[in-house]
Amino acid sequence: MTATRSIEVQRDVAAERKQVAAAARAEFTRRGTLVINLVSSPGAGKTSLLEATAKHWALQENPPRLAVLVGDIATDRDAQRLAPYVPVKQLTTGGACHLEFELVARGLAELPAVDYDYLFIENIGNLVCPASHDLAEHVRVVLVSTTEGDDKPGKYPKMFRTSQAMLVSKIDLLPYVPFSVASVIADARRIHGEIEVLEVCSLTGQGISAWCDWLAEQRERLLGL
Amino acid sequence: MTATRSIEVQRDVAAERKQVAAAARAEFTRRGTLVINLVSSPGAGKTSLLEATAKHWALQENPPRLAVLVGDIATDRDAQRLAPYVPVKQLTTGGACHLEFELVARGLAELPAVDYDYLFIENIGNLVCPASHDLAEHVRVVLVSTTEGDDKPGKYPKMFRTSQAMLVSKIDLLPYVPFSVASVIADARRIHGEIEVLEVCSLTGQGISAWCDWLAEQRERLLGL
Repeated sequence: MTATRSIEVQRDVAAERKQVAAAARAEFTRRGTLVINLVSSPGAGKTSLLEATAKHWALQENPPRLAVLVGDIATDRDAQRLAPYVPVKQLTTGGACHLEFELVARGLAELPAVDYDYLFIENIGNLVCPASHDLAEHVRVVLVSTTEGDDKPGKYPKMFRTSQAMLVSKIDLLPYVPFSVASVIADARRIHGEIEVLEVCSLTGQGISAWCDWLAEQRERLLGL
Repeated sequence: MTATRSIEVQRDVAAERKQVAAAARAEFTRRGTLVINLVSSPGAGKTSLLEATAKHWALQENPPRLAVLVGDIATDRDAQRLAPYVPVKQLTTGGACHLEFELVARGLAELPAVDYDYLFIENIGNLVCPASHDLAEHVRVVLVSTTEGDDKPGKYPKMFRTSQAMLVSKIDLLPYVPFSVASVIADARRIHGEIEVLEVCSLTGQGISAWCDWLAEQRERLLGL
């Protein structure tokens, strides 16, 4: 009986969390903020991508308003890296393997109260657990770096099934690593036939313009702007 | 009351698991089997390291007896890669983010019943959750690849605190990536002052001999052989 009762409690909590995330997403939509949940293995280049994204847009005539919430288990290293370019708040989980919306909401309350055009949430570096948590995002984007091997989608299927786009990162290293872009795309599309694929190198800037264009299209499409 | 009761149940389960792992470790020690729990981010090179290790030892006059249990969320790709070199059994968690000893024991029962000199357990690619689970290993070894960035130990402290050795992998890529071996060592030793550090490149074989020597030393030291 005790076991059954605690399972019911967990279900209620999950349903409640879903509702909270859905309501928050609707509010972001109303305010014109596209929310992007960036997920990947540790070190696939989420923070570098955000640096490159902020720098790219800063050079435009009417740059969009960006903010970043960056999750880590310990340290505020990523927030320190991003602070020169964009309003950023570090979310530290103190051991937990993924972000939950409650922590995101707390971080958001500490950012300047602006209707941002784009809010990036950089999740914990983990290809497993963050797949199960809705952070009120409009799009989930999974990075897979060319140094991780082209077999990752099939091995971590939930993450690739629940992401709208896969960014193949560190493409400057392709000449030095056993990795086929065609293979990783085929593997991802076996799991998720419609997944969008973009190739980037944040250090050289390759593909960053196309990535920013894709984000702008998503904002138009999903927010009706 | 219900909440308190379920916490007590969880504690009992944790204590019981600890005892089971400790008893299994003692039995491995008695049989002369050094058990190594290999942990890392996805794609840091655990399977490639095991390929290189098996090939290196196979060339020796009296090669040690090796076996591998390889964990993945989905697919048996890693077992397929290793099968030409070493007895291997795939452990598929079906979604779970780490291995537990129960699954390891089941896999072990399906390997040829031999007193192995070394049993390698390749964990799920995840720098967070596997840190909390004792697989009856004698040594936990964390791989960090040069393409992941040299800031990982501080960001995933539990994994580096609970590992006896850190293998810096993919050192052939050092000329092409922003990564300092000195920095990653300093970062790891801030968390775990005694952590052993080895540098390897499994594709070229660099450092594999030293890694095998280190394993042999651990077997002598920990198993009294």
